[in-house]
Amino acid sequence: MSTEKVSPPAQQRQDASDDPGSVGIVVPQQHTFVEPLALACGRTLDQYTLVYETYGTLNREKNNAVLICHALSGHHHAAGRHSEADKRPGWWDSYIGPGKPIDTDQFFVVSLNNLGGCHGSTGPASINPQTGAPWGPDFPMLRVRDWVHSQARLADLLGIGQWAAVIGGSLGGMQAMRWSLEYPERLRHCVVIASAMKLSAQNIAFNETARQAITSDPDFCHGRYLAEGKLPRRGLAVARMIGHITYLSDDGLGKKFGRELRSGTFDLGAEEEVEFQVQSYLRHQGDSFSGTFDPNTYILMTRALDYFDLAREYGDDPVAAFSNARCRFMLMSFTSDWRFSPERSREIADALMHANVPVSYAEIESPMGHDAFLLPNDRYQRVFAAYMKRVAAECVGRDAP
Amino acid sequence: MSTEKVSPPAQQRQDASDDPGSVGIVVPQQHTFVEPLALACGRTLDQYTLVYETYGTLNREKNNAVLICHALSGHHHAAGRHSEADKRPGWWDSYIGPGKPIDTDQFFVVSLNNLGGCHGSTGPASINPQTGAPWGPDFPMLRVRDWVHSQARLADLLGIGQWAAVIGGSLGGMQAMRWSLEYPERLRHCVVIASAMKLSAQNIAFNETARQAITSDPDFCHGRYLAEGKLPRRGLAVARMIGHITYLSDDGLGKKFGRELRSGTFDLGAEEEVEFQVQSYLRHQGDSFSGTFDPNTYILMTRALDYFDLAREYGDDPVAAFSNARCRFMLMSFTSDWRFSPERSREIADALMHANVPVSYAEIESPMGHDAFLLPNDRYQRVFAAYMKRVAAECVGRDAP
Repeated sequence: MSTEKVSPPAQQRQDASDDPGSVGIVVPQQHTFVEPLALACGRTLDQYTLVYETYGTLNREKNNAVLICHALSGHHHAAGRHSEADKRPGWWDSYIGPGKPIDTDQFFVVSLNNLGGCHGSTGPASINPQTGAPWGPDFPMLRVRDWVHSQARLADLLGIGQWAAVIGGSLGGMQAMRWSLEYPERLRHCVVIASAMKLSAQNIAFNETARQAITSDPDFCHGRYLAEGKLPRRGLAVARMIGHITYLSDDGLGKKFGRELRSGTFDLGAEEEVEFQVQSYLRHQGDSFSGTFDPNTYILMTRALDYFDLAREYGDDPVAAFSNARCRFMLMSFTSDWRFSPERSREIADALMHANVPVSYAEIESPMGHDAFLLPNDRYQRVFAAYMKRVAAECVGRDAP
Repeated sequence: MSTEKVSPPAQQRQDASDDPGSVGIVVPQQHTFVEPLALACGRTLDQYTLVYETYGTLNREKNNAVLICHALSGHHHAAGRHSEADKRPGWWDSYIGPGKPIDTDQFFVVSLNNLGGCHGSTGPASINPQTGAPWGPDFPMLRVRDWVHSQARLADLLGIGQWAAVIGGSLGGMQAMRWSLEYPERLRHCVVIASAMKLSAQNIAFNETARQAITSDPDFCHGRYLAEGKLPRRGLAVARMIGHITYLSDDGLGKKFGRELRSGTFDLGAEEEVEFQVQSYLRHQGDSFSGTFDPNTYILMTRALDYFDLAREYGDDPVAAFSNARCRFMLMSFTSDWRFSPERSREIADALMHANVPVSYAEIESPMGHDAFLLPNDRYQRVFAAYMKRVAAECVGRDAP
């Protein structure tokens, strides 16, 4: 049996001396796909660009590739840093890197910015080649399956016939599940974290309120804010604040801020004053987000979330849906996550078991709510790493002559 | 023992033939108080008007009066109708009326619009006599205790030395608890429904986001929208949507709307389209509220909520706080209420027991979230009625020669 060690390229390890668990400096790549993509809404994108990053090395057998699917506000930059000066690493740096659960010494990790995004891939803020102006509200509405189809094109480009695993949290988990139905032969493992087969009415209601905050901002200009030289920052900030509260748990917020006063006194009177630490934190979150994220993308992503309904074309029967899957599943959820509660993951596990699809499920204790899937957590890391070690072992096994 | 039956005046029963449980047609009353009111913020209101309604008749001993304290968006019109044409009765009509838990055949019920409100009592939309223009953002910030003090003046006006009970849900429950500390001798029973001794960080965060939605609406004009001939309707609508979701439970929303589509199809594409029933419902709720409620009042009320902290002046010790109470307590909470969860009521019950204050507590099964305190519910009605029957019996007892 071969024990070939897959090492990341030297370029990616150049600053790893500081942090042996980091993939180091990474350079985003991009590709423009010119084969038209038929979308679920009935429209077609004639061409589109996807921005992506890769960490680790694709082995000779091309069987160690892992796809990372991002959530609502995510992007391609999942691990490492873009420069030595970069203050923050990628959004999932705690889980991707040498020796980490998604071990870049073992896997070739691909992370992209989804179509419709605002970090370099074609989206509402991109120029519509037919008009020479930003797409804005004319950008097609996307469904999760459209992302899966565009991700499959990226796999083709990279020469990956079958993913060792497709992995995602939240909206990313929906993409991973959809992969198992759209391309059952193209993945061996599906890792679905803090996700659901469909949103609850409450989730839809929060998303709708966030969209209303954006679209009712006069600077939204019916989605044509870029053409008008405006930006509905205030609306997007409120939308982000709504999201942010719901991604944290009541306990998590309480532990982080309690009812601590910013000034240490209750004697403030001015209407505009920020009194509680949690207010200050939320305003900062909203403001900084609204300077970096495209409002039309936020609307598009939340609508894709709302519309996702895994079993809809299968007579609303998740067992029938998952009967098409050919991969193994690993599910994880977090005890204090109330937007994608453990109950939603148990529903997935139940459906998979009834469909005779192999599934492991771990419910992780955490006070951090939905955000837990992004944050360091001992048990989560151990469970995740243990599963991925088995996935990696299979890749090595397949290397055997 | 006298068994004098207290009957509401004929005028109030005039249309009761249609609905024997209704207090009938009611006429709001108002009084302008000219004795200055010193406020917790350090400022003073030289004069102010309170609008109120009364149901039932004050007995000779004036010992059967009950005060209703309203919640965030409530007002004085708690029961009955303002005219025969009135389509909807007062906000707590299910619980106030002849034979209802707050039985107007037994009690003289007083319900007011709080100071700072926008339904007739002096508030930010009233004219500041010193400027001749609406108060707007210059209206003083109020605390729950300010409401209690102004309510005590109303009691004086009506000749009520001691309430048989002070009753409130949510923010109204906070007023009831504060009554027991500010005027321990002026109430015999304190009925606190779906309330808390202080808000959690999550609750503050939701309120802060709602306020941000209002204040970031350009039509807010730093709170001077009335002087500018504007109204931040969009911001207030979003604020109300946020509130509305959090007053309902996930299950409740699910049962009411599920993921039902408005058009019965997933094939809609327009960005402005309303697809899910829950979206349509929320938009309607937001729009209709924003046409009738004053945005500055919404800010004032949510800030009073955020700042309420029952035990703050008692060394953060609720037991020390409640040791000042001289009344009996009745607490109720609802299983699916996640903004004022049963846990919060249990904390109140624990503190009262440790302070040796008599307390009854009922946790009511309901899928309706925080809103449950306003809605018909068999067990809630039975428990509430049983408690109030004992309160009424005491009033009769005190009538004895």
